[in-house]
Amino acid sequence: MMDLSAKIKEIEEIIYQYLPETQDKQAEMVEAMNYSVKVGGKRLRPMLIQETAKLFSADVKDAEPFMAAIECIHTYSLVHDDLPAMDNDDFRRGQLTTHKKYGHAAGILAGDGLLNYAYEICADAVLCAKDTLKAAKAMKIIADCAGIFGMVGGQAVDVALTGKPLDEDTLEFIYVLKTGALIKASMVAGAIIGGADEEETAIIEKISVLIGRAFQIQDDILDITSTTEVLGKPVFSDAKNDKTTYVTLYGLNAAEKEVKRLTDEATELLMTLPGDKRFLCDLFEILVNRKK
Amino acid sequence: MMDLSAKIKEIEEIIYQYLPETQDKQAEMVEAMNYSVKVGGKRLRPMLIQETAKLFSADVKDAEPFMAAIECIHTYSLVHDDLPAMDNDDFRRGQLTTHKKYGHAAGILAGDGLLNYAYEICADAVLCAKDTLKAAKAMKIIADCAGIFGMVGGQAVDVALTGKPLDEDTLEFIYVLKTGALIKASMVAGAIIGGADEEETAIIEKISVLIGRAFQIQDDILDITSTTEVLGKPVFSDAKNDKTTYVTLYGLNAAEKEVKRLTDEATELLMTLPGDKRFLCDLFEILVNRKK
Repeated sequence: MMDLSAKIKEIEEIIYQYLPETQDKQAEMVEAMNYSVKVGGKRLRPMLIQETAKLFSADVKDAEPFMAAIECIHTYSLVHDDLPAMDNDDFRRGQLTTHKKYGHAAGILAGDGLLNYAYEICADAVLCAKDTLKAAKAMKIIADCAGIFGMVGGQAVDVALTGKPLDEDTLEFIYVLKTGALIKASMVAGAIIGGADEEETAIIEKISVLIGRAFQIQDDILDITSTTEVLGKPVFSDAKNDKTTYVTLYGLNAAEKEVKRLTDEATELLMTLPGDKRFLCDLFEILVNRKK
Repeated sequence: MMDLSAKIKEIEEIIYQYLPETQDKQAEMVEAMNYSVKVGGKRLRPMLIQETAKLFSADVKDAEPFMAAIECIHTYSLVHDDLPAMDNDDFRRGQLTTHKKYGHAAGILAGDGLLNYAYEICADAVLCAKDTLKAAKAMKIIADCAGIFGMVGGQAVDVALTGKPLDEDTLEFIYVLKTGALIKASMVAGAIIGGADEEETAIIEKISVLIGRAFQIQDDILDITSTTEVLGKPVFSDAKNDKTTYVTLYGLNAAEKEVKRLTDEATELLMTLPGDKRFLCDLFEILVNRKK
């Protein structure tokens, strides 16, 4: 199986170029923002933007600001999730969470700063784009999927119902919005930037929904099959927080089957598209088999 | 002196049209977002966008989404400011703060939702604009002024240094960024949407900096000269929190003089611009003489 570490490094080199820098009085907050992004991760969302764009175009330079923007949005959501009023986590990826390292207020503000910064990058990208409309469309799908009708909406319902038993319908709602929306935004934004036509973009959207769902269920699986060392965050946290997940609702076996089914379906759809699909195929395979 | 209540109502009618609506599972969070915006306020920032645009154009319909967006950004900043880890305020404008009414996690998420929603509105505005570039420029100045190099940066320094004595330089930095940046964004975005040329936009920017500073110093003055009933929030909060302000640094008399000086200078600059300047003149006068 493909090793992602070189690819992750490539993605990080791109997105780090966009991160804020200053010697001015807010330097410590800028440091907290950078720390939050640089603490690591799979860089799945920017990777999906880039690789989806590549299916449709050889020149995907225009995708780069959006890769940085979506990673800033993903990162801010983790920083705020980790806050004491939310999941109250001290560690993420084996490192201190932002509020643990920089203080509670700084955790809130670093998250705010990162979310806003994503749109500073997007606004710049729209202004500088060769194709303004394409860039504006990419920004719009990202903004829509990150907000109250996307990720924030899923998070809001998840937080409001923590500790309460969820029905299938509600769990599905949370999955689609909380994790699914940003993955959808990544692939659709990539397709738009790459120049996919409407039909191709619709197929990409379908694939992204399947992959987003598989990714979330795999997360639930790892919470009970992995170890804290490998995962870089505490395992059994869902059980501890009385969280309903796909695994608690349908069992581990059904969850593993569902991840496989979703991934197979996504891969089949992918095969109907043009371009070199090898990387995305391998990536989907890695996501199913990942251990963290 | 002009009564602003009719104008505030007009502005609110515009911005409320843009607020999110849903019957779906995240309805309570949408309610928290709407509550935060509708709790009231002077609507100064959207008012400045609209009235600045009007100096340069008779048709300022294109300014409307940006008016809503900047009020969402201003509101999110207040919602997060009020959180226990920040100012820990239970009341704002005489009403319960968002986290007091909806819970701590909901306060964080409602703020996140509002900030992101501002850019959902902006992205839509750029896509639908007759003049895409103008709209993208307006979005860019708003995004830049709201973030780590603007409002969030000022807030970060303010929070980091609360309780410590500030020198004039640092106080100035906080004023320019924390309050000044969004007021600058409002007037400059208005000028751009209205079609001001570069020279006119530069004058508007100068005016906005003066007014932003006057507005902040007037806030400091009211903290010691107003009452909790009139202000709708606790007075003497700066003193209680050992906060350095223009008033604690230079005294009440000098502060009042400085507000007058800044406003006079802004009004003089305003007179060099085209268009009907009566409303903005009156508004500047009201800001100096406001009691809340």
